[in-house]
Amino acid sequence: MENLAIGIIGGGQLGRMLAMAASRLGFKVIVLDPMVDCPAAQLCSDHIVADYDDEAALEVLAQRTRIITYEFENVPVATAHFLEAKTTIFPPSRALEISQDRLTEKQFFARCSIPTVPYWQIDNKQDLHAALMESGGTGILKTRRLGYDGKGQHWFNSAVSEVDMSKAMEAINHAPAILEGFIDFACEISVLAARSQKGVVEYFDIPQNIHREGILRCSQVPASIDDIIADQARDYTQRLLEALDYVGVIAVEFFVTKDGGLIANEFAPRVHNSGHWSEAVCCVSQFDQHIRAITGLTLVRPQRHGDCVMENLIGEDVAKLPELLGQENVLIHLYGKHEVRAGRKMGHFTRIF
Amino acid sequence: MENLAIGIIGGGQLGRMLAMAASRLGFKVIVLDPMVDCPAAQLCSDHIVADYDDEAALEVLAQRTRIITYEFENVPVATAHFLEAKTTIFPPSRALEISQDRLTEKQFFARCSIPTVPYWQIDNKQDLHAALMESGGTGILKTRRLGYDGKGQHWFNSAVSEVDMSKAMEAINHAPAILEGFIDFACEISVLAARSQKGVVEYFDIPQNIHREGILRCSQVPASIDDIIADQARDYTQRLLEALDYVGVIAVEFFVTKDGGLIANEFAPRVHNSGHWSEAVCCVSQFDQHIRAITGLTLVRPQRHGDCVMENLIGEDVAKLPELLGQENVLIHLYGKHEVRAGRKMGHFTRIF
Repeated sequence: MENLAIGIIGGGQLGRMLAMAASRLGFKVIVLDPMVDCPAAQLCSDHIVADYDDEAALEVLAQRTRIITYEFENVPVATAHFLEAKTTIFPPSRALEISQDRLTEKQFFARCSIPTVPYWQIDNKQDLHAALMESGGTGILKTRRLGYDGKGQHWFNSAVSEVDMSKAMEAINHAPAILEGFIDFACEISVLAARSQKGVVEYFDIPQNIHREGILRCSQVPASIDDIIADQARDYTQRLLEALDYVGVIAVEFFVTKDGGLIANEFAPRVHNSGHWSEAVCCVSQFDQHIRAITGLTLVRPQRHGDCVMENLIGEDVAKLPELLGQENVLIHLYGKHEVRAGRKMGHFTRIF
Repeated sequence: MENLAIGIIGGGQLGRMLAMAASRLGFKVIVLDPMVDCPAAQLCSDHIVADYDDEAALEVLAQRTRIITYEFENVPVATAHFLEAKTTIFPPSRALEISQDRLTEKQFFARCSIPTVPYWQIDNKQDLHAALMESGGTGILKTRRLGYDGKGQHWFNSAVSEVDMSKAMEAINHAPAILEGFIDFACEISVLAARSQKGVVEYFDIPQNIHREGILRCSQVPASIDDIIADQARDYTQRLLEALDYVGVIAVEFFVTKDGGLIANEFAPRVHNSGHWSEAVCCVSQFDQHIRAITGLTLVRPQRHGDCVMENLIGEDVAKLPELLGQENVLIHLYGKHEVRAGRKMGHFTRIF
């Protein structure tokens, strides 16, 4: 087996876990991240400390690796294009580009005949006014770009005044936005799937996710959904994978409505927090499967050896560690972050039943 | 949780897997190994390239870490003593010292009332002659020090001439040795246990091991032994752990005789090849448990989620990889070694049933 080097753009916890998986498969890893002490830095052969748009650094990364991937969806599209001209980058830049803009993402879902929540394009206060008239005064105003973990969002829970609208537009700095209508859902699920370079698709079992304050708190497997819904969710995901000519692991978040319908929320062109449980109960985790897909290795059906719940350790949650360390059937995974900050993902654990 | 750094002496595959486990528990790792491109180098915060007896380098390692451990039992005892005077090193140097010499190891087993194979101290050809007279002409001549994976051994399968004896003594370079009598065993097992700084002991389920040409080929869990034998093996192991005031993971190899007796073969004061399966079917692997023990964290009873067989990929066995990658329920772990050599451990895989 040749010792192929893999480049990873972004050295957060996802890059760190990808680096571990790549190592277990015998690959060397070079991470590019501007932070000297990023979580992945401790677990790679080499770390190029540079900004994501530093072309000289990207050039070095391309020269020293055979395949490049990324761990977050806000890698500049120009970076992906720059690399694409020189080397192989998976998932394809088109997936990155579409997922970076909530409007194009929703339009792409529609093109694949995948239902989404009602939404309105918001470029100014007039648009917001008109949209809120239609939505009945409620909805979530979200910037089209760069929001994550509940940041860059504004909730309208009841009819609002012009002043409130102005404040909301100011709060998002008048950035291009969309208003998403509320929907009444029974639960949230995500489909984690991998597509190989040859177009083979394999699915992980579907987790049910619980968010709080816009951040994923826990994922439970299996989800409490019936097979028809699960099949439908996989079918939607497959359409998306094929339309994108995707290679790698993808995560597609869905709302399950009370009448058993499915509504796509968003997709992430990368490994995903809601798939972390796979390292505890599958021989092939989402990280392994992603590395297999991008390097052209065989994908495998990821069998699950137990029911489980993955829970994030966010900020002061790390205080639970001494107790968790004493519990059987709990796999603990910390990210090596020194500083505990509110809302910061410090680690996670998976409890197997 | 403070970001405590752990030093590991030795950067082979065991150091590499210890480094991964330490990272998952949020620790930084600094490895000391003379080989620039050793397997652990790719998975640690820092790698001090130095010989194991380089005191200046050891001094740096001690200053930059809070706890030091090792991944192989041939770390010079002088190195352990040097470090002990400056910092904390686990397992204790006494375990290292005893395990490095097959004679003192056997004597120590005897002190703990743990049965061993019959053995004779061999310092010269006369000793060998006398020993072979007593053993009936058969046995294995082993150097007291530095043998592993079947190296430094000479087998006497039938009565031999003086010339054969001279050749055998020459083959081991007249090094101090022992002759071990053959025993007729039903199977080989190993006890993997961890002892904490507070003296708490936790056991992994006992694997049954198959060796070929002195190298471990596979470990199957559970072993085909009854509970009485398993309890006896754990009891012997506990005596050893307590006599050594041990901290960390230990592996004790036993022969199970055809009449249901147990004979200790040797112990390794470290994580062990016959415990690799634990990463596939336990929330807390032998690597996790070792890191917990040496850093003062709580040990946990390592529950096993399935029956399994771990098999080593030795030398050209890596040719099996394409097939293995396509099999469900197989966890593959490669060590990032570039060059395939006969007898070289390139990786392992665990098949879950």
